[in-house]
Amino acid sequence: MLSFVNDYSEGAHEKLLQRLVETNRESLDGYGADPYSESAKKKIRAACACSRADVYFLSGGTQTNQVVIDAMLDKYEGVVAASTGHIHTHEAGAVEYTGHKILEIPHQNGKLTPEALENYLKAFYRDENHEHMVFPGMVYISHPTEYGTLYTKAELQRLSEICGKYAIPLYLDGARLGYGLACPDTDVALPDVAEFCDLFYIGGTKVGALCGEAVVFTKGNTPGHFVTLVKQHGALLAKGRLPGIQFDTLFTDGLYRELGRHAVHMAGILRKAFVEKGYTFYIQSPTNQLFIILENKQLVRLKEKVKFSFWENYDEDHTVVRFATSWATKESAVRELIALL
Amino acid sequence: MLSFVNDYSEGAHEKLLQRLVETNRESLDGYGADPYSESAKKKIRAACACSRADVYFLSGGTQTNQVVIDAMLDKYEGVVAASTGHIHTHEAGAVEYTGHKILEIPHQNGKLTPEALENYLKAFYRDENHEHMVFPGMVYISHPTEYGTLYTKAELQRLSEICGKYAIPLYLDGARLGYGLACPDTDVALPDVAEFCDLFYIGGTKVGALCGEAVVFTKGNTPGHFVTLVKQHGALLAKGRLPGIQFDTLFTDGLYRELGRHAVHMAGILRKAFVEKGYTFYIQSPTNQLFIILENKQLVRLKEKVKFSFWENYDEDHTVVRFATSWATKESAVRELIALL
Amino acid sequence: MLSFVNDYSEGAHEKLLQRLVETNRESLDGYGADPYSESAKKKIRAACACSRADVYFLSGGTQTNQVVIDAMLDKYEGVVAASTGHIHTHEAGAVEYTGHKILEIPHQNGKLTPEALENYLKAFYRDENHEHMVFPGMVYISHPTEYGTLYTKAELQRLSEICGKYAIPLYLDGARLGYGLACPDTDVALPDVAEFCDLFYIGGTKVGALCGEAVVFTKGNTPGHFVTLVKQHGALLAKGRLPGIQFDTLFTDGLYRELGRHAVHMAGILRKAFVEKGYTFYIQSPTNQLFIILENKQLVRLKEKVKFSFWENYDEDHTVVRFATSWATKESAVRELIALL
Amino acid sequence: MLSFVNDYSEGAHEKLLQRLVETNRESLDGYGADPYSESAKKKIRAACACSRADVYFLSGGTQTNQVVIDAMLDKYEGVVAASTGHIHTHEAGAVEYTGHKILEIPHQNGKLTPEALENYLKAFYRDENHEHMVFPGMVYISHPTEYGTLYTKAELQRLSEICGKYAIPLYLDGARLGYGLACPDTDVALPDVAEFCDLFYIGGTKVGALCGEAVVFTKGNTPGHFVTLVKQHGALLAKGRLPGIQFDTLFTDGLYRELGRHAVHMAGILRKAFVEKGYTFYIQSPTNQLFIILENKQLVRLKEKVKFSFWENYDEDHTVVRFATSWATKESAVRELIALL
Repeated sequence: MLSFVNDYSEGAHEKLLQRLVETNRESLDGYGADPYSESAKKKIRAACACSRADVYFLSGGTQTNQVVIDAMLDKYEGVVAASTGHIHTHEAGAVEYTGHKILEIPHQNGKLTPEALENYLKAFYRDENHEHMVFPGMVYISHPTEYGTLYTKAELQRLSEICGKYAIPLYLDGARLGYGLACPDTDVALPDVAEFCDLFYIGGTKVGALCGEAVVFTKGNTPGHFVTLVKQHGALLAKGRLPGIQFDTLFTDGLYRELGRHAVHMAGILRKAFVEKGYTFYIQSPTNQLFIILENKQLVRLKEKVKFSFWENYDEDHTVVRFATSWATKESAVRELIALL
Repeated sequence: MLSFVNDYSEGAHEKLLQRLVETNRESLDGYGADPYSESAKKKIRAACACSRADVYFLSGGTQTNQVVIDAMLDKYEGVVAASTGHIHTHEAGAVEYTGHKILEIPHQNGKLTPEALENYLKAFYRDENHEHMVFPGMVYISHPTEYGTLYTKAELQRLSEICGKYAIPLYLDGARLGYGLACPDTDVALPDVAEFCDLFYIGGTKVGALCGEAVVFTKGNTPGHFVTLVKQHGALLAKGRLPGIQFDTLFTDGLYRELGRHAVHMAGILRKAFVEKGYTFYIQSPTNQLFIILENKQLVRLKEKVKFSFWENYDEDHTVVRFATSWATKESAVRELIALL
Repeated sequence: MLSFVNDYSEGAHEKLLQRLVETNRESLDGYGADPYSESAKKKIRAACACSRADVYFLSGGTQTNQVVIDAMLDKYEGVVAASTGHIHTHEAGAVEYTGHKILEIPHQNGKLTPEALENYLKAFYRDENHEHMVFPGMVYISHPTEYGTLYTKAELQRLSEICGKYAIPLYLDGARLGYGLACPDTDVALPDVAEFCDLFYIGGTKVGALCGEAVVFTKGNTPGHFVTLVKQHGALLAKGRLPGIQFDTLFTDGLYRELGRHAVHMAGILRKAFVEKGYTFYIQSPTNQLFIILENKQLVRLKEKVKFSFWENYDEDHTVVRFATSWATKESAVRELIALL
Repeated sequence: MLSFVNDYSEGAHEKLLQRLVETNRESLDGYGADPYSESAKKKIRAACACSRADVYFLSGGTQTNQVVIDAMLDKYEGVVAASTGHIHTHEAGAVEYTGHKILEIPHQNGKLTPEALENYLKAFYRDENHEHMVFPGMVYISHPTEYGTLYTKAELQRLSEICGKYAIPLYLDGARLGYGLACPDTDVALPDVAEFCDLFYIGGTKVGALCGEAVVFTKGNTPGHFVTLVKQHGALLAKGRLPGIQFDTLFTDGLYRELGRHAVHMAGILRKAFVEKGYTFYIQSPTNQLFIILENKQLVRLKEKVKFSFWENYDEDHTVVRFATSWATKESAVRELIALL
């Protein structure tokens, strides 16, 4: 059966596996103190054009959001996010579990707009009573967003300026960062992310790794005793080589970029076909996720041959669904899907 | 200076102080095991017409919400509340501090409507993915609401039915319950609250006590080892006599009802004056809080002689303000204020 | 029936009640912003001979310990305490509830000795592996201890020096501080406590107040947004006047000292009688708590006429019990008890 | 350089890597819903001779302890552990981070003895005051312990009976379970663990896997919505295939047993050599960890050629060190080390 259900259905890019195999019997220090992790950090610093970036590897996206947000916030602070933010909707309350509120702002195509953010912060500090309120202590955005949309460089810069003005860090969830950076239309490159964000993570799990996300603190702002905090959250891998070797490989010879490009290219072929065949898009997304409004009858028919995601009910007769391509999507599969449309 | 700034500016009704004085040298067991606490519980059970009600005394509203919500929720659950709910806006994240998310629903005049609740719960359980979401484990309403509005008996019954259908408890925050029950137009009496809610609290701090809220579990549903949970939250008073004697007095000879009526009567006189003088109401509230849209110039003038609360900016030239009466408001003060309008 | 069961069985000293009554109808700002709270803080600063002391009022001991320890600790830190420390034994895990470990050190007569503390800290920082351990972030002592024993000035100074060396604050739980300061044999006065401790609290609940503890930060070290943190823990009293007026009265004309002295004087009479009648002391305590080893038969007999506390089983035939005097103990009651011995 | 520093320095057994490679391009459902995870669970149930065992895969030991202990405990409960328990010493307070206290009992050779446990529980329930204490809600043991020692079948049975009597679950941390089960002298087999423990985990990270621990609930006692709880803790792997395939391979053709035996055999050769050469053992450990008291001079000399672990200072001139063998230890390396002794 064809699968466009998500971008983490396959294992890892073969080059990553090969390196795991090649280095397998080397006796290495644990908890990230191995040379492959060091090498990966160096390459990520270079790719970010940020020599003082401090890099750590964690296992998955929710874990990364939870650890990093908790570590950065003061106890009386919460994190500002768009209403569609992954931390607010599909992480089982992992942020609140650490004691911190998510301060919701209405989204626009999945994005947190600079205007909405500025209005929120202005209003908060105008309120005479804010001693009884949760202080905004961080801003969370995802790029690409949960709707596959992207910030422009100007938007990131503006968000960064607002955060700077209020002295709170800007945090970017890059679970699918590779697919955002690879978009032909984006003007945002990895050094821009590193420049405008105080911290962010480069997603591995959804972009060709078995597991692993690379957290990057860009401004000399790593929380004190961060490794202990990671341990305290149960998130410190004994075999730090596992994400280390994978990220070292992803950032060798442009593999991460290449994987991103492939998925976006595959999505582009599929998008064009949807357009040509007159399908209705729920949202315009330039990355690897396509949101289509299907008639329910057609949905049932298609489901027999293709796996894709239910997104939400549109009306009685229509449903929003998502087709995702990935680093592992074969062009032949895209062609087969197109033939079925 | 006149003060209509809130309903907790004075100490306690004199009868409460008098009883504290009279019983002062009695040697009593601590932590709520004294006979006055027992007597108060008995009277509250009678006033609720709920013989199996289990009653506990805590110090303040935020503390009560925090302890009770945390104690009732399973670890994977959150609490559903209107966007204007006090727990969501002005309790400094006390609920999230305990690890639980607040699941926000848009309000209607400060209320959580049965329709909105039902739609929310339906949608949650229709979602295929809810394993990654916070489960709704409780519904929070306040009565009167933060806008001074009231639920009807039919609305409470409907909310109760929906909660029953989804097997989650309905919790009513009664910080100002006395002012709600005393409204001439309400059809909700204390036994109705006890019937339709699985738990609620009767506010003392804002209705004539120095401190103290009475939590009532109405369905044999007190969480196991609740006293230990209260202690764990730092909320167990050594001298349980302090709230016990006060509530015992409040529920003797109808004092609680009388204090509520007085505040509502005072608000009625003031409301009539605002109407007659052509003031614009921000919201129609039948209880002890009046929300008025003032021209900013007038606001400045009035502020010199009267204390009242800033609520929110209305537009560039207008501000929403709140005038609150209380058990302690003197009719002469209301007359003075009216003369200033 | 005679009661020596504890020091919080009665209400409050009459002067406190009288002031509550006298000020009752004054319309005051909430949350501690009233002039009585201000006045109380001023008097406490003076009594501590510490002009920059920052003072806050909370309701009870466990709450105070929980809020203050959580507010002072970094997320990766725990609090060092003697194995007998109240936070470690009888506060239902209130500190752990906030996410922080208690790092236990064996006690000596209820005290944390400077030697034991220094050895612990040395060993911790010698350990190569301490990235995987909870960092000691604060030292907790109680004075008097849970066994009624007292630190000497030299011991406090030494503890303070060790804490200073490791840059962690020394926190003193003064639930019964009044009874410690009033001891004829102690060389520790309130200004010493303020000098050697980075923070401490002056207990009200056990020394003549209805409720209330005064937290004192002595080194310009109040945690940022402390009021919000207090609110977040559900510990902010709307009517801050309640503890404010009580502490203002306790620190007027030496009342706090006088109440302490009375209890210690009563304990002295009782101690002398126990000695004369050949009773065995479990521990030598100079304050208001006396720990006696009773034969079980005698215990049963005495229990019919006097209330006192079970402490622990001593052996099959003997039990350790506690007799506590307080600000409210009458000399006639002490005489009656002595007649029964 | 030779390394006996721990048992997680190498990658994974080659058969595991091979299966990861072979299955790599299969499109599988995420979050543990893949057929390899299913197959692994089936094989584990068989190996445990426990048909109703419910199995879940997590990434590492601290994470597993944190998630499982938090999920099993009621909010007012703590977990009983030996003073040497890993959760109590080297997990950075991960259990306390979830709000639960660890109730420490002195260890005996790293073990929690049935007598000590029973005395503790008896004393707790005899205490009149336990409403203000943390309730024991679970018993934690590790097997092998942190000192490499093992429980006998009779001891496990006795611990199980005591837990049953007090209606609290017995939890076994099996980070190194493979090395315990493979000991020639043990009478404890995997079905015994499943019979006597209410839950336990089978360690993968230290016994031949890249990562992964298999949690087994043996009595139909899986906490409700456990997957959501795992997600809430940030511990749910998107690619559940990663631990699934590894455990499926470990439990095929007795590989897990074989890996355990190898390490124990290597340790046996080394132990014999230490004995013959007159070295002093700090503790008698029958598994893959050997604790030796070295003269400091010798330690320095040996360190130049071999990696091993500092354990603790013994006296001024001696140090306790640990040599660990593993599934990956080569006999030639053991011979080289012996030659150096």
